[in-house]
Parts: sequence; C-alpha cells; structure tokens
Amino acid sequence: MASPELYGLTASEVQRRIQSNELLLEDYVQSLLARYRARDKDVNAWACIEPENVLKQARQLDQIPPEKRGRLHGFVIGVKDVMLTKDLPTGYNSQAHTTDGPLLDASSVAILRRNGALIMGKTRTTEFAATTVGPGTKNPHDPSRSPGGSSSGTGAGVADKQIPIGLGTQTVGSVIRPSSFNGIFGLKPTWNAISAEGQKVSSVTLDTFGFMGRSIEDLQALADVFSLRDDELPKPVHLKKARFALVKTPVWPKAGPGTIAAMERAAQILKDAGATVEEVTLPSEFDNLLSLQNQVLQAEAGVAFYREYNTTRDKMSDKLVDMARNIDTCSKKDFLRAFDTIASLRPKIDEIADRYTAILTPSTVDVAPVGIEWTGSSDFNGIWTALHTPVLNVPGLGGENGMPVGISFVTSRYRDQHLLQVGKAVGPLFADKGGWKSDL
Amino acid sequence: MASPELYGLTASEVQRRIQSNELLLEDYVQSLLARYRARDKDVNAWACIEPENVLKQARQLDQIPPEKRGRLHGFVIGVKDVMLTKDLPTGYNSQAHTTDGPLLDASSVAILRRNGALIMGKTRTTEFAATTVGPGTKNPHDPSRSPGGSSSGTGAGVADKQIPIGLGTQTVGSVIRPSSFNGIFGLKPTWNAISAEGQKVSSVTLDTFGFMGRSIEDLQALADVFSLRDDELPKPVHLKKARFALVKTPVWPKAGPGTIAAMERAAQILKDAGATVEEVTLPSEFDNLLSLQNQVLQAEAGVAFYREYNTTRDKMSDKLVDMARNIDTCSKKDFLRAFDTIASLRPKIDEIADRYTAILTPSTVDVAPVGIEWTGSSDFNGIWTALHTPVLNVPGLGGENGMPVGISFVTSRYRDQHLLQVGKAVGPLFADKGGWKSDL
Repeated sequence: MASPELYGLTASEVQRRIQSNELLLEDYVQSLLARYRARDKDVNAWACIEPENVLKQARQLDQIPPEKRGRLHGFVIGVKDVMLTKDLPTGYNSQAHTTDGPLLDASSVAILRRNGALIMGKTRTTEFAATTVGPGTKNPHDPSRSPGGSSSGTGAGVADKQIPIGLGTQTVGSVIRPSSFNGIFGLKPTWNAISAEGQKVSSVTLDTFGFMGRSIEDLQALADVFSLRDDELPKPVHLKKARFALVKTPVWPKAGPGTIAAMERAAQILKDAGATVEEVTLPSEFDNLLSLQNQVLQAEAGVAFYREYNTTRDKMSDKLVDMARNIDTCSKKDFLRAFDTIASLRPKIDEIADRYTAILTPSTVDVAPVGIEWTGSSDFNGIWTALHTPVLNVPGLGGENGMPVGISFVTSRYRDQHLLQVGKAVGPLFADKGGWKSDL
Repeated sequence: MASPELYGLTASEVQRRIQSNELLLEDYVQSLLARYRARDKDVNAWACIEPENVLKQARQLDQIPPEKRGRLHGFVIGVKDVMLTKDLPTGYNSQAHTTDGPLLDASSVAILRRNGALIMGKTRTTEFAATTVGPGTKNPHDPSRSPGGSSSGTGAGVADKQIPIGLGTQTVGSVIRPSSFNGIFGLKPTWNAISAEGQKVSSVTLDTFGFMGRSIEDLQALADVFSLRDDELPKPVHLKKARFALVKTPVWPKAGPGTIAAMERAAQILKDAGATVEEVTLPSEFDNLLSLQNQVLQAEAGVAFYREYNTTRDKMSDKLVDMARNIDTCSKKDFLRAFDTIASLRPKIDEIADRYTAILTPSTVDVAPVGIEWTGSSDFNGIWTALHTPVLNVPGLGGENGMPVGISFVTSRYRDQHLLQVGKAVGPLFADKGGWKSDL
C-alpha cells in the first residue's frame, strides 16, 4: 500500500493504517527517508540520521505482534540534538563534548522508545540550545528565512514532512518560536511536568521539554504517554461557551504587521465561532517580567555552562563564553530578587488565566525573519516560560510572502490537557479560515 | 616518605606534601587502597573501586610538571554512585539501568577532574538516592549503626579515612545527615549554585549537589573550584562579634537527648567564645514547611522516576514504585500550593538569617540509629533544603555510646563562602571543646 505521499501522514494516521494492516512501518520509513534524501540538502534539518539503523528499527517494530505493540507504535520521532540517545551521538552543535560517548537515553527518549516509538535521528539545534545563531537549517517554506530556534531542525523537519513529530526544549522561546515560523503545532508543557533529565541544561528553572507536530492528535498521544495530567478530566471545548483573554503583553509594541493581523484574525475567527474574546491587560507587576526572566537565565546559564567553561572554553562561541562567565559576575542579590519575584507571579497568572478558557497571545514578533544566521526574537515567549504555564502554538494564520504566523494559547499551570482540547477546537478553524496553508 | 598513616591526612595536607616533594600521589593512593582493603569489608562504603585504574591515574598525575598542576592536584575524591562517571559504571543501587553505558562525566565530576582531582571510585547510595533503605554500608564508628543516607558510602568512607573527601546529593537530608552520623563536615551549598547535571534527579527544585570531608580547608578548595561566590568577599568570622540565632524549628519535639545536649553545648561553646546566641522562633508560616516540602518531593519524584516506572518497573523497590506512581495521583493544585508557598518563604528566611552571623540548628534527631536497614530521620534537614539555603554540618559534639552528633549552621542563600568562614571559626572550637573525637 506504499504511496508516494506516505511521508505526509500524521503519526496517528500512520498508526491507524498499520493497525488495519494497510501499511508496514518499514514502507512508511522508506518514504520518510526518500523525503529526507530529496529535501534535506536544502533544508538541513538533521544533525545525525543513520538510514540503515532506522530501517532496522522499523523491521523490528513490524515484527512485534499487534497485541504487544506500544501506544506509540508507528510514531517516528526526531530528537533535538541536545538530548541523549543510546544509539546516536549527541552533538549539541558544539565541539565541546566530542570525546564523550553517552550510551544513555534521556528520560523522555527512553519513555518514547518503551512505548513503541521509533527514533529517526537527531535534529539540528543552536549551540547547546542556548544561543540564537542558526545551525544552518533553513525554513522549508522559504529557504532564505530562518526556521527559528533553538529547536531549528525539529521545526523545519516536521514542517517539511521529513518527520511527523519532533522533540524540542524551551528556555525562552525555543519550541514556540520555531513552531510559529514553520506553521506547525508546538506544545511547551507546564515546567517540569515532564522530566528534562538527559537533556542539556541552560537554566534549571526555565528549561522545559516540549514537542512539535502537524496535528493535535499526535501531540495528544505524546502528552498521554508522558502522563501529562490535569486535576480535572479534560472535556471538549465548545467555542460557543468559551471565553478568551487576549493578552498583548508588555512586548506588544514589538509586534510586526504579520502578528498584528494574525491576532486580529484569530480573535475574529473565535468570535465568529461564538466565543467571547476580551482584551486583558496584565497588572503592572508583570511589566518587567521579560527582563527578570533574562536575569534568571543569565545567572543560571552561568552555573549550567560552568562545566564547559572550565573544561573546553576554546570550543565555545564567544556568546556562550559570555553566558558562562556570569557565574563569576552576576549579582546574586539581583538574581534572587528576579527569581523570587517571578515565583510570586506564578500563582497570580494562574488566577487570571483560570477566569478564561485560555489566554490568546502572540507566538512571535512576526513571520520568520530573512536570513538563517539569526533564529529570531523570542520576546513574546519569555514571560510564559518564566511563569511555567503551558503554551500551545496553533498554526493556520499567515503574514508576508505567504509565510506562517502562529498564535499561542496559554492556560494556568497543569492544565496541559485542557489546553490540548482548546487546540482541538481551534486548530481546524484556524486551518480553514486563517488564510495560510502549507505548500509542502 | 610513605608512612602508615598517610591515609589519615586531609586532601589539603596531602597537597602540601606533594607540593614540597615529600610525597608522591601514588604512595598516598597506595595508602588509601591499603586502608580500603583492610577496612571496607566491614564498612562497605564502595559500590565500585578499581585499584589498578586509581593507581594509573595517580601515576599520570604525578608526572604532570608542578607548574601545570590543577588547583585540586592531590585531592582524591569519592563520587556518590548516582553521578555519571566516564570510566566507571553508575549503579544507583538499582538494577534499572544495568544496560546503559554512560561514558560521560556529570558536570561536577568533569570540573573536579579538570582541576586535577583523582576520582577514587563510586560510593554507596540508597536506591537512586531516593529511599531510606540502607545500601549495606555500616557506620565506621560503630558497625551496628547506620552511616545515614542517602550519601551513605561517602559519609562512611570519609569518616573511615578511606578517602579524604566525597560527593553527595541532598533532596531532604542526604548530605547533612550522614555528615552528622559520621562526625565529619558536610556542605549542602545554595540550591543550584553548582550544576546537578549528570546526577540522578529525584526532585528538581530540591536536589542539591554537596560534598563532605574531614576539614573545612578541603571543603573550601572544592567551593572555590566550583566557583561558589557570595556577593560580598568573605571575611574571617570573629566570634566575639558574632551573633547566632538558635533555631529549634517546629520539629524540635523530635530531638533526642544527644541532639538536645549537643545544641546546649554548642551554644555554650559559642557564648564562651564571646558570641551572642539568641533563641529565635520562626514565624508560624514556617510551621508546615516540612509537610509542604514532602508534597513537593512526592510530586516531583513522580515526574523524575516516571522513566524507570514506565520502562523497568519490575526492578524498582515497592517504595520507589509508590513514589513514581505520584505522577498519576498527586493533586496538582495541592502541589502548586506547596511549591508556591515554599517559594514565598525563601526571601523571608533570607531576611531573618541576614540579621545574624548564622543560624544554629540541629543536623539530626540524635546520633546514628542502631541497625543499618534504615538510614535515619531527615526531619531536621528538610526545611533548609526546601528554602535553598546553604547548610554546613560541623562535627565535634557527641551523644550516647561515644557516637558523634553534628550541628548545622545555616545562612541566607548565596552566602556559602561566609558559611565556610563560620565553619573555620567554629570547627576547631567544637573539636576542642565539644567532647567528641574520632577513634579512627
């Protein structure tokens, strides 16, 4: 039943075809590999991929009797190259760890494998997922533009249909920004709802494990396998009864025409569907949150990269050396003030968010910038990362040159499953009426 | 110059002898290995030690020209067996990861090696440093008693002079408790002042990297190499001008006769040296801190051990399975209330602590309990771990049967260097006048 467009299926669609004996995983993987061979010289999404190993895994998985297959059987996943994998090197887009051979899976990767997922390879990242210098990956919708970062390869590879789903990490905007720039769904779950063990640390209190795909259904499957759980059983969201808070955030003056138009259109689509959309201005104590977030990041990055700074400084970029140097220069008092202030704002944003079905807010300043050297601004993402709230990027809207612009939905902490329900309600509407469609 | 008692030197003394060409590191290591061979069948401090590899490292280090030697040249260090090491297996006192081969150093281990330290081996831990079931290690002062945990092997090995310094991790009391039970110094630095990358996670917001030794000077050397830094340059502490807050904590009713007597004696020694000691009761909002800490631990352990729960459940103890199950059962709302309340108390304890030279508080309920199955209560440690403050255990006082009882000194966050100055002033006094001396 192999067809030339197998690679374009979502992981859940692939799973259904395998379950009904229409498809072998091996044939699907062959299609992904053909897509990779045809496209990746232009997109450059992958840091490491071993086709023979991928096919071998597929054949092994095909041989598992149906009743013994895992929840993610048929799911083929790209792993950001800052997460440890037993069978593939981890490069971090750096020369600092070339002599290490960690035959060890990150916590997330081990859980995915255990549930039957196939690891396709390692996707490109900025240096240690900590800088905004692009790793050479191009936006598949327009190769003159950035795919965003730091989860550059996952964003581009998923959008380019070289892979249905991929893993990312977010310290500021590294999941949501590439999701927005590439026109795909991306979930940054509640901080530490999923273990980050085995992924490179930039900032302990900010770094969040996340995942990106082309359908909410695929994200839902991963969310379930990772045991993301709300206190209340999630119920379908009926937009007629829904109330959204439109939060422009203190960064709004930076919004470009693409984002301004996308926010207006998103609000109109929701209103047309019967929802209430109310503009909400966060209390003034949230005004400095982005700079507080940056203070925490700088101080914690100093700790996180002290190992590399102390052992392989000559192999780090100047930018990363500057971050690492913070261990010796940041004022601890200023850091603690930022750390404690952010902590005090978390229950406050929860309280505000809980008055609404979800918060509606920009994912990025605008469409992906021209040039692949810089992965773009994450100014609209930082505050939500600091606040530990889950964030879902929903695609479907567009800006200049037919490029995608994403919209973020946000809830209070540990309402990740509810947030996916919001995505399930809103995603098809944005796809139908948002005005942007992928040509890939 | 080899002498039969080389093994009893502190790391700093060894370093001085090597610097003045009185000693080869190889001879010193031979002495440590002889001590290990003579004693460890009774103490059982080590999970893994490879004498040939240790000697080879020593010979290589001996050949480094003096001007190229690292700050820690001559320091021989035991690594708790929950931290990754490039050249030795990491067992976690569990069968869950036996097929992993992480040829990778934890961040802390890489920094120590880079600075010239020699890694002696892996010290015993409770299962994943998360349970209180002893790993078979005995208290060297009385083999019928526990050395504490979870850093059991480091505590016992350092006290038994099989190693001058060792690494530990603390989620509740896993550095301070074994330090107290074994009569050695132990520093739990400010949370995340030193990267925990590459050590097994139990609770992201509680787990703290620490180290234990028989002299403040040795701890000071490690603190400097790890770039522990206060905002203000630390100055010597003059006890005549010092003010201590004696904080019994809400757990005080649990204190046994050894701890009650040790606290009285410690206060008297400080007063005799001219210091002010003022009993301070924490505001009532601190009353529930220990149970809040436990709520955070249970919820975060659910996340941290979900990987093992999902992949190798049959190789986990029932206790650990119960902890892991929390990912599906803990109320997120209760967890967040605990998480946010603790966060709000951190700046408050800083403010209280900053009124004093340091806080004086119990390290443990009493001397080490009889029996090696249980590593003892950590009730006096949990609140400080949750508050992220640095804690230093100072030995020198004793309880029943000639066993040691430690006293904890605590400051506000990021005053680790000041805390070591407190230890430098107080340590010799407790050793002289506390009434307890090691027979080992």
